[in-house]
Amino acid sequence: MTKVLITTVPFADRDPSPIELLEDAGIDYLINPFGRKLKEDELAEMVSDFDVLIAGTEPITEKVMKKGKNLKLVSRVGIGLDSVDLLAAERRGIYVSYTPDAPGPAVAELTVGMMLTLLRHVHVASSHMHQGIWRRHFGRRISEITIGIIGTGRIGSGVINRLTSFQPSKILINDINLGSQLLSLPWVESATKDEIYQRADLISLHIPLTRITKNMIRYDQLKSMKEDAIVINTSRGGIINEEDLAKALNEGHLSGAGVDVFEKEPYDGGLRYIERCLLTSHMGSMSVDCRARMEIEATREAVRYFKGQPLKCLVPQDEYEVQRQGL
Amino acid sequence: MTKVLITTVPFADRDPSPIELLEDAGIDYLINPFGRKLKEDELAEMVSDFDVLIAGTEPITEKVMKKGKNLKLVSRVGIGLDSVDLLAAERRGIYVSYTPDAPGPAVAELTVGMMLTLLRHVHVASSHMHQGIWRRHFGRRISEITIGIIGTGRIGSGVINRLTSFQPSKILINDINLGSQLLSLPWVESATKDEIYQRADLISLHIPLTRITKNMIRYDQLKSMKEDAIVINTSRGGIINEEDLAKALNEGHLSGAGVDVFEKEPYDGGLRYIERCLLTSHMGSMSVDCRARMEIEATREAVRYFKGQPLKCLVPQDEYEVQRQGL
Repeated sequence: MTKVLITTVPFADRDPSPIELLEDAGIDYLINPFGRKLKEDELAEMVSDFDVLIAGTEPITEKVMKKGKNLKLVSRVGIGLDSVDLLAAERRGIYVSYTPDAPGPAVAELTVGMMLTLLRHVHVASSHMHQGIWRRHFGRRISEITIGIIGTGRIGSGVINRLTSFQPSKILINDINLGSQLLSLPWVESATKDEIYQRADLISLHIPLTRITKNMIRYDQLKSMKEDAIVINTSRGGIINEEDLAKALNEGHLSGAGVDVFEKEPYDGGLRYIERCLLTSHMGSMSVDCRARMEIEATREAVRYFKGQPLKCLVPQDEYEVQRQGL
Repeated sequence: MTKVLITTVPFADRDPSPIELLEDAGIDYLINPFGRKLKEDELAEMVSDFDVLIAGTEPITEKVMKKGKNLKLVSRVGIGLDSVDLLAAERRGIYVSYTPDAPGPAVAELTVGMMLTLLRHVHVASSHMHQGIWRRHFGRRISEITIGIIGTGRIGSGVINRLTSFQPSKILINDINLGSQLLSLPWVESATKDEIYQRADLISLHIPLTRITKNMIRYDQLKSMKEDAIVINTSRGGIINEEDLAKALNEGHLSGAGVDVFEKEPYDGGLRYIERCLLTSHMGSMSVDCRARMEIEATREAVRYFKGQPLKCLVPQDEYEVQRQGL
């Protein structure tokens, strides 16, 4: 009988290890036959009978769990937990595990690449060149600007570390818990979010999506940024309001934006029509090595469950508190 | 009487200092009225009567110098000297100066940005997203791959230094004069060009255009590279043969290419039609700070000439030897 539903796609695409782990343990599995992110209803319809979900970012809600009569473990391939109703899982005695460390390096590298691209207008120049338009764009270097990083956890600090060899002159950081290690760097300075919006030339978000961070950056915040500022969101869709971002950009505000994550994915909204918007398809964790590590870690957790071994990647209590307190 | 012809454009676009330097010294100047790179004949027609050229990459040939009866100094805004016939200048007693250090940081940053973009297929994803296509691309990280750097002077070593905080696992380097400082890094290894073509996942060129480097990478060299290799040229057009590169890419060879420099600029060739080719319009040095520094240094040299002060940025003898020996 099939035990594991793998909803995240692609899965084991470049590295077959996760499948081998399941097969070696004699565990039957089904990979999401839609080949794309499932909607709540689709998942609710599929989930009955499965013991374990190896999950992407599809909504794992009360409704889904109610249909999952046998569901005992949700093993998230990735770090974000906004898609999982942790309190519903807790009530139903469903374990939730995740892979918080694995995606960090890949997301951080994508982010730094976006920074360098946006600062030099490489995406606009390349689009022009492909249209036969030769226009030389002026850009800025990392050491010329003030960078604002909101969220300095695994990924935000990974970004800051990678910027080191570009000799940054000023990085403003904001987080609920600021690491003293980052603040010991002479070019790093603590700032409020509003100060970052006003002072930074480039603002990058590395925070989870919660009730508090949803729509954290709306039209007013965007307009409080410098006219030629750049914003980057490789964390979660919805933290920057997409329609407000499109509106501000269409009004000529901001010199560019980089967006990898969207409220509704696949994305098909107004940012598509804005040339200086660099858009990617939730590819933050999609390096061969990080993706394999995430899938292997999440699959190992599933295997542990079936073998009756202690789970090693359980989501810590403070993540439940975030949802309990509506933070 | 107008003394200085400024052929490079844009000039003093973001920072007016170079114009102020000329005006403060009471030196009349004319900025290239075409607003684009001049052809040999156009420059030959314009150059008569001018004492000094503040030059871009337009051809400063025997023919041009012959017409420039009063020409005493060519002050190049930039580092490359392939556009200047140094031996003709020497014969006619025309000084040639340049700004070898100024563009380095900007070119190195553009190159690293191109590396990160190409490794993650960000340019392809963004083009797709703008067309309404959602496709998640797998990519690679710096620490997963072998990088090959051909040319380890100011710019090549600037690239290697900036890669440090990405924890590279292997960088193969090749140059006529290899710096021992680079080789002391545990991840850096000396290699022949052929070894680099065969072993590297990403190959970046940082060498001048000379008779020897022209067409250094043709179809055979491209085909000797790994099927999913990436090549980047931010040095000079013509070092990688453009038609051969387009041919190899069109045959499905290489996973991507980044090209900032072309044999004939503005470029309008076959690479335009290849999606996985990241193209920019000779923007390597186009950061606000580096461009200003280049223009100011080249202008100061012109002012020194008129004031009868010793020139400080004269091209060294070994650059003349390169052209004399047809290297």
